[in-house]
Amino acid sequence: MPRLVISSDGPAAMPGWRAAFQHVAPDLPVAAWHDPALEITADDYALIWNPTADDLARMGGMRAIICTGAGVNHLLDNPVFPRHVPLVRMGGEQTAALMADYVLWATLGLLRGGRTWAVQQNAHQWHNPRTSTPTSSQTRVGIMGMGHLGAHVGRKLLQVGFQVSGWRRSAQVVPGIRTFAGPSGLPDFLRDVDIVVNLLPSTPQTRGMIDYALLAQLPRGAGLVNVGRGDHVVQADLLRALDEGVLGGAVLDVVAPEPLPPDDPLWRHERVTITPHVASEASREAQARYVVEVIGQLERNERPALLCDTRRGY
Amino acid sequence: MPRLVISSDGPAAMPGWRAAFQHVAPDLPVAAWHDPALEITADDYALIWNPTADDLARMGGMRAIICTGAGVNHLLDNPVFPRHVPLVRMGGEQTAALMADYVLWATLGLLRGGRTWAVQQNAHQWHNPRTSTPTSSQTRVGIMGMGHLGAHVGRKLLQVGFQVSGWRRSAQVVPGIRTFAGPSGLPDFLRDVDIVVNLLPSTPQTRGMIDYALLAQLPRGAGLVNVGRGDHVVQADLLRALDEGVLGGAVLDVVAPEPLPPDDPLWRHERVTITPHVASEASREAQARYVVEVIGQLERNERPALLCDTRRGY
Repeated sequence: MPRLVISSDGPAAMPGWRAAFQHVAPDLPVAAWHDPALEITADDYALIWNPTADDLARMGGMRAIICTGAGVNHLLDNPVFPRHVPLVRMGGEQTAALMADYVLWATLGLLRGGRTWAVQQNAHQWHNPRTSTPTSSQTRVGIMGMGHLGAHVGRKLLQVGFQVSGWRRSAQVVPGIRTFAGPSGLPDFLRDVDIVVNLLPSTPQTRGMIDYALLAQLPRGAGLVNVGRGDHVVQADLLRALDEGVLGGAVLDVVAPEPLPPDDPLWRHERVTITPHVASEASREAQARYVVEVIGQLERNERPALLCDTRRGY
Repeated sequence: MPRLVISSDGPAAMPGWRAAFQHVAPDLPVAAWHDPALEITADDYALIWNPTADDLARMGGMRAIICTGAGVNHLLDNPVFPRHVPLVRMGGEQTAALMADYVLWATLGLLRGGRTWAVQQNAHQWHNPRTSTPTSSQTRVGIMGMGHLGAHVGRKLLQVGFQVSGWRRSAQVVPGIRTFAGPSGLPDFLRDVDIVVNLLPSTPQTRGMIDYALLAQLPRGAGLVNVGRGDHVVQADLLRALDEGVLGGAVLDVVAPEPLPPDDPLWRHERVTITPHVASEASREAQARYVVEVIGQLERNERPALLCDTRRGY
C-alpha cells in the first residue's frame, strides 16, 4: 500500500496538503515528514521542495521522490541526494497553463511598455506617450527550452498569433514551431527573435549561458523573459546589455539570489520587471491531482513523463 | 478627384502622414489643413482628431470626415460639428489587433497581480508572494460593447482560453460568445464575470454608467479594464469600490481628465494600473491604409462599416 510523506513548505502547510489529498484521493494515506513518530518504508513516496541534507539522507529507501517544483537542480546539485531513487518533477495541466499565462503577460508587457508605464505612473506623469507598437502577430518570440512546458507555452503564444520559434538541446519536431537544436543552432535561433523566453532546466551546461555574448546576438532592443532559473543569467551582463540598448527590456520571475538584496540595481531598473517566482504555482489541489497520477503510474510500473534523468540533470 | 486634407496631430505630424500616404497610395493628393492657401472643395475628405470649433465649421462642405480615433463623442458633442457630413471612425486590422493585445495584457495583469508586484518591486521587497491564481481558462471575462472592436477582442480572449461573454445595446449573435442585450440583460451579464472590459462608445446613455451600483453587481473582488472612455466611469465610485473590496483591481487606459491631475488618488492606488491612452494607436501607415480603403468605399458609394449614426452617437 503506497503512502505519501510530505515535507514541502513545512509543518504549517500540512493542513492544506491534507485537505487537498483528502479531496482528490481520500484513500491515499498521507503522513507528515515532521512527525517525530514517522517510520519510512519502501512503499513510501516523498513530496518535497527543498529538504535539508539530513532529510535527503533519510529518503534513500523510498519508492520515489516527487518535487513540487518544475526545476530540480537544487536537489541534484546536493551531493547527498539519493540518485538511485526515482525523481519526478512537478507537472500537470494547471502548472503548464499558469506558466503559459505568465509568459503571455510578460511578453505582451514587453511589447506594450508595461514597465515604462508603471515607472511613469509612480511619478504621476506621462512622458512620450505616443509610441507606435507592433502587434503580437508582428512579433517573433523564441523559446529556449522546448520540453514539456516550453512546447505548451509555445502553442499558447501561437494561438494568440505570435510568431514562435524554439531552441533545445537535441532536435525534435514541435508542430507549427520552427525549432533549432544544439550549440550550432543557437546563432540562427537568436538572430530572428524579438523576445526570448528562457525555460531551460538549470544544469552545468546551461548555468550562466545567458551572458552578454548571447544577448548581443539578438536583434538590438530585443526583450528577455526569464522563467527558468536565476542562475541561467549573468546579471552583470544583463544590466550592461540593458544600459547599452542591446536589450530593450526584461521580465524576470527568477533571479539569483531570491529575493535580491535590497540594493540590487535590478529592483529599480526602468526596463526590468521582477516578480517573486510566481509564474507557475499551481494550487495545492491541482498539485495533489498530479501527484496522485504519478503515484498511480509508478505503482503500475509506467514511466511518468517528467521522470528525471539524473545524469542529464532534468 | 478625391483629396485628403489632414489636421490630425498638427503641422508637426504632416511629414509623417505624407510619407505614410505616399507609401500606401502615391496617387492620392494630400493637403495640410494648416496650409494658409488651402481651399476646401466638395471632393475633399478630412482626416482629423480634435479640431477647433472654427475648423469644424469649415468642414460643412466636405465629402466626408474620417476620425483618427475609434471614439467620436468629442466631435458629436460639439454643437458646431457638421452632422450632415458622413463621419467614419478609425478601424482597420491593426487598430483591432492592438486593442486585443492591450486587453489581453490588462486582463492577464489583473489575474496575475501585475500591479501588486510593481508596487512591491518599487519598495524592493516582496510580501505574501505565495498566492494561488486561477488560470485564464478558469476566468470569465465580460465585454461591455460588443461592436466591431468588442467582437474582435472577444475572439482573441476566446483563443487564449478565457470564458467570454458580452453585453451590448441590442441583441446580436457573436459565435462562441454569450451576449446579453439592453438594460434588462445587464444584471445577468454582470453576475457571472470575473473581469469586465469596457469598450462602449461614449454617449449620453453610457456616460457615468460604470458607477458603484453597477460595480456592486459584479462578483466581489472582480476586475475592471477600461479601454472605452474615461467618462464612462464615476471615478469616486471606482475608488470606493476598490477600497471596500467590491472591486479587486482596475486597469485604466482612459481616465477623466487626461492626464489626471498630479494629486489624483488613482495614480498611487495599489490596485490601479494606468496607461496614457495607448491601447490602440495604430501606426500612421496602418491608419493610412484604412483611410484609403474608406475613401475608396465612399467614392464607390459603398457604406463603410464604421460610418457613424450621429443620432445613436457612434
